[in-house]
Amino acid sequence: MLSDIDIAQAARCKPIGEIARDLGIPEEYLVPYGRNKAKVDLRFLRSLEDRPQGKLILVTATTPTAAGEGKTTVTIGLAQALVRKGKSAMLCLREPSLGPCFGVKGGAAGGGYSQVLPMEEINLHFTGDIHAVGVAHNLLSAMIDNHLQQGNPLGIDPRRVTWRRVMDMNDRALRHLVIGLGGKGDGVPRETGFDISVASEVMAILCLADGIEDLKARLGRIVVAYTYEGKPVTASDLKAQGAMAALLKEAIQPNLVQTIEHVPAFVHGGPFANIAHGTNSIAATRTALRLRDYVVVEAGFASDLGAEKFMDIVSPYGGFHPEAVVVVTTVRALKLHGGLPKDRLGEEDLEAVRAGLANLEAHIGNMQQFGVPVVVALNRFTADTDRELELVRGAVQAQGASIALAEVWAKGGEGGLELADRVLEALDKGNRYGPLYAWNLPLAEKIRTVATKVYGADGVVLEEGAAKTLKELESLGYGNLPVCMAKTQMSLSDRPELKGRPKGFEVHVREVRLSAGAGFVVAICGPIMTMPGLPKSPAAERIDIDADGRITGLF
Amino acid sequence: MLSDIDIAQAARCKPIGEIARDLGIPEEYLVPYGRNKAKVDLRFLRSLEDRPQGKLILVTATTPTAAGEGKTTVTIGLAQALVRKGKSAMLCLREPSLGPCFGVKGGAAGGGYSQVLPMEEINLHFTGDIHAVGVAHNLLSAMIDNHLQQGNPLGIDPRRVTWRRVMDMNDRALRHLVIGLGGKGDGVPRETGFDISVASEVMAILCLADGIEDLKARLGRIVVAYTYEGKPVTASDLKAQGAMAALLKEAIQPNLVQTIEHVPAFVHGGPFANIAHGTNSIAATRTALRLRDYVVVEAGFASDLGAEKFMDIVSPYGGFHPEAVVVVTTVRALKLHGGLPKDRLGEEDLEAVRAGLANLEAHIGNMQQFGVPVVVALNRFTADTDRELELVRGAVQAQGASIALAEVWAKGGEGGLELADRVLEALDKGNRYGPLYAWNLPLAEKIRTVATKVYGADGVVLEEGAAKTLKELESLGYGNLPVCMAKTQMSLSDRPELKGRPKGFEVHVREVRLSAGAGFVVAICGPIMTMPGLPKSPAAERIDIDADGRITGLF
Repeated sequence: MLSDIDIAQAARCKPIGEIARDLGIPEEYLVPYGRNKAKVDLRFLRSLEDRPQGKLILVTATTPTAAGEGKTTVTIGLAQALVRKGKSAMLCLREPSLGPCFGVKGGAAGGGYSQVLPMEEINLHFTGDIHAVGVAHNLLSAMIDNHLQQGNPLGIDPRRVTWRRVMDMNDRALRHLVIGLGGKGDGVPRETGFDISVASEVMAILCLADGIEDLKARLGRIVVAYTYEGKPVTASDLKAQGAMAALLKEAIQPNLVQTIEHVPAFVHGGPFANIAHGTNSIAATRTALRLRDYVVVEAGFASDLGAEKFMDIVSPYGGFHPEAVVVVTTVRALKLHGGLPKDRLGEEDLEAVRAGLANLEAHIGNMQQFGVPVVVALNRFTADTDRELELVRGAVQAQGASIALAEVWAKGGEGGLELADRVLEALDKGNRYGPLYAWNLPLAEKIRTVATKVYGADGVVLEEGAAKTLKELESLGYGNLPVCMAKTQMSLSDRPELKGRPKGFEVHVREVRLSAGAGFVVAICGPIMTMPGLPKSPAAERIDIDADGRITGLF
Repeated sequence: MLSDIDIAQAARCKPIGEIARDLGIPEEYLVPYGRNKAKVDLRFLRSLEDRPQGKLILVTATTPTAAGEGKTTVTIGLAQALVRKGKSAMLCLREPSLGPCFGVKGGAAGGGYSQVLPMEEINLHFTGDIHAVGVAHNLLSAMIDNHLQQGNPLGIDPRRVTWRRVMDMNDRALRHLVIGLGGKGDGVPRETGFDISVASEVMAILCLADGIEDLKARLGRIVVAYTYEGKPVTASDLKAQGAMAALLKEAIQPNLVQTIEHVPAFVHGGPFANIAHGTNSIAATRTALRLRDYVVVEAGFASDLGAEKFMDIVSPYGGFHPEAVVVVTTVRALKLHGGLPKDRLGEEDLEAVRAGLANLEAHIGNMQQFGVPVVVALNRFTADTDRELELVRGAVQAQGASIALAEVWAKGGEGGLELADRVLEALDKGNRYGPLYAWNLPLAEKIRTVATKVYGADGVVLEEGAAKTLKELESLGYGNLPVCMAKTQMSLSDRPELKGRPKGFEVHVREVRLSAGAGFVVAICGPIMTMPGLPKSPAAERIDIDADGRITGLF
């Protein structure tokens, strides 16, 4: 069988100028990066403001398993199928982080005949956005430590600097470190650490900002530390926001690429879906909605993480109105949720599927709560039996959702035609989208709403420090921000080992962090990895390039 | 008076495709980055191998002073002047590091009417080369610490890991740190530090590599650590070179831009001129030499650093034959070398000029030793008096060199016509270029040659560790590499406070480092800063961007 990179390298891209021309983007607003990638000048977005908006289709999935659900692949395949049906459609994805490419997972640009191209470039440096985020982040870090070194006129408590540094690399040895060693001229010693670049609040800001002025304002509001008196210190106190915004001048422009079937795609911004909101930039989605009648947008992780945040944080900030949700799943994933061991996924097992359906039902119900019709995309594997498929179909329909088989990995858009039909029908039904909570509720109440209504928890336990921080944040005027729940993606609960649809648990909020620039309060429930490590045999050892520049080992 | 950024923003670039077409670069080999920057595919360089080479003119300067000599500006102005005289000419520069832009110095792309454009983009992320160098470097770092974490089968001694990490930022707090804290899952605790990205050996390798295969081979030879038994551990022992080279796939392609007068310029690679060789990539220079009759190349710092290394390291590796050297100086700089305080530079002072001429004479002599004719470019300031200029002219001519006034900041190429005439005359004289030492001499002997013949030292003192390392390196088979002397740029000696032309001193080699990938042995003489800090009031505080994306505060 051909690998993803083989298929990608055999595919021919249209010149990106041609893709842009078909979208009606004038040449003066197109900034080429090589022949197959381009940025779109934000001034073009401004020129579109009076146009009607297309329909927004959000793609989420069941709780991730080791089997892989194929959410990105379905997102791409669905847009390809809509175009095959003669619709005006495109898609929006997050851009992959470079670090994990060298760890376990290889690339992240879809798969098979539902990929975005050029695959290697998207996976490696792409148009430099994540590098720009990293430098803007680390400039602020350097200015903080420089402030400490140069007499500390703001009175920053070096023990309360919350702003860390970032690197786009899986590098566990940088999680906890002591900097500023070496002597008087080499900074003030203190404990800190590095996160992976995409975990930076700057990435979240880039994806939520509404133009350069808003970007600068949000950057300026970042809280980086507290003074000895407990007063928050912001990036604007350090006069950092102008230079940071200058570094993000190109990064804020959406990146245009194409799928293997030449369907236009914005791949732009890549915030985490736990400590941040987990979808591509508002700028990209907003532009897409003015260029096409149908826009397919992927959210990170499952409905309890990326999709909930899209409904409760991103859509209110972006002025979006999602009109249908696709929940991607596989029979294999349902079997794992139903308790079947990984080595028996190839066998028909109706009992395991039935048990695993609880997970799918929870995600369908989660999305229906937001008043939006749900279509399940069952990503088909050859081992799936008709009886297994029928079982899933019956359960989904009983819940008032529709379902289609997807074979987009093997067949591209052709394999997504049934899914496209179901989605178009769902859109015809109309919807009454609304977020789950009002932003003016108390922070703890907003956390409780998500935990009980989306995770299925009985309640929330605020650990001591967390309760105290929530009160502090409300007294500092941050009480009206939405809440961004950071919990494991491996379970609907906050305990990764609980598969299926956990019941009778409480969500434990261990810590609360402020992302004042991004505009949300992060409630941390359980250990969240913001700096991954490399495995025993990193993928990097197998990545290579030949004399003609052909890359191998990215998959 | 208009600032550099005002002049740059008022200038109009030609489309980069037009510049490339004039150079005869076929469209298929041009990779655009926006409208005004492009990379040139290395396969184009291969297609040029049979063409005759143009003449290489190297630009260096007197010992740097606080007054600034304007070396980059003269390099650009000279190429512009040659084109004005109807010659087929272009230039090659290093690309500026982003970190220092936020510190003291602002941009680094020439000045006035002798700039390369687009100035802001060249100074900020440009085409991402330095980001790529940083990631490739840090991938190797992460693989080293991952190896330690995953059982350390190679037996790396954690106390003898010589490979640090890098960041493109002035961040003194990262010079010395302890990583791997936090517990068993968070790496092995050890002491290390960060350098600024351009100080990475990967940058030196990128600039010396002859295509992707050679790049990979050099990366594989990097020595990153020693085992408990004292055996060197290389990047290829960690299987890192393939992934590192894949990350550098675009970075190795020369960047094409233009000057304010639309003269083509390669701005590519930016190694330090102390711990590395200090000139733009061999790929850029080699391509330029096949596209134009005259190629002006700038070397870092003064003749004792960048230019010496160009003659002794870069030219042998690149197969270059420099045919003339331009030494840039100013009356103000000579006065500072002559002992005049900074606040009196505006006054005529023949005595100070006469005293300072010793510095210029040393640099002229240094370059003449390599068998190449020397032209002094006296970068003119309004306060310079005729008598001062005459004094310099007489001294230069007495040494057998020629001299021209340059007013390229204010007048562009028009201000460099006299300089262009002198350079053309010098080229007509012919030359007998040769390096100063044979590579097969003992390492200590090569160090002694540079110290005595170029720095004017009486001899070399090898401190204990340095002598031991030299022996070790020779026994490990690295004795035939050229030596790269890392010393202060602020003096011809190894003591920054010694201005003018120091006499009666010895050069102290404190430490010897191996850059086996780049292909040289670094002799460290005195403190060398590989991670700068920010000043009390960083330039970053004054950099800003408006709603239309116009950047201010870069100068």
